[in-house]
Amino acid sequence: MEISHIEHIGIAVKSIEEALPYYENVLGFKCYAIEEVEDQKTKTAFLKVGETKLELLEPTSEDSPIATFLETKGPGIHHIAYAVEDGVADALAECKSKKIRLIDNNPRKGAEGHNIAFLNPRSTQGVLTELCE
Amino acid sequence: MEISHIEHIGIAVKSIEEALPYYENVLGFKCYAIEEVEDQKTKTAFLKVGETKLELLEPTSEDSPIATFLETKGPGIHHIAYAVEDGVADALAECKSKKIRLIDNNPRKGAEGHNIAFLNPRSTQGVLTELCE
Repeated sequence: MEISHIEHIGIAVKSIEEALPYYENVLGFKCYAIEEVEDQKTKTAFLKVGETKLELLEPTSEDSPIATFLETKGPGIHHIAYAVEDGVADALAECKSKKIRLIDNNPRKGAEGHNIAFLNPRSTQGVLTELCE
Repeated sequence: MEISHIEHIGIAVKSIEEALPYYENVLGFKCYAIEEVEDQKTKTAFLKVGETKLELLEPTSEDSPIATFLETKGPGIHHIAYAVEDGVADALAECKSKKIRLIDNNPRKGAEGHNIAFLNPRSTQGVLTELCE
């Protein structure tokens, strides 16, 4: 698999409105978009740091995966997303051939319209890992 | 504060030896160094992904901060480190003036000889955050 860079880091927050002043006024980043990803029941704020984005993830419903994460682990880093060069479908096929467990067996649409898929943390040393096109 | 990019992401692992095959053989990264940081009681493996490094952190003692992390949260992403342009001392002064709680009041030497300092997760939306020169 050919990974060029870290596409984004997902960070679970209780409230984007409460979290943004730290990222903008202390760290000096700029939020350039806020988007709702309906099937993940999540609102996402995007900030750019070099070649990588930060995605602040706020649950929009109590049964959002982010709500569950906040309840069990508290706010913090939720996942890491790698930019794959040859497409997510090929990368998933390679993962399968190497006995990596998948959350998504096929690519699906994620934030900003990217093709994405998640790998199962049981096969990735505990790190929720996204592959991103 | 002027942050140019994400310098590294720290990932807590039980064993570097057991974790490396996933990072090298599945994701295709290359471990270019392994270093022991004695005052953190940690062994660190370095891999490069674009402009960012992954640091796999293995405890070398039961009272290592990484051992505590593994016990309470399990293996996974431990911290995020930002590269600051104007030096860590200036960045810490700015954080203090903005009422951010610090773990390190002054810069200290971290892995690879960098000047570093950690901010307190209580002031950083739950994310253990390192500033790095």
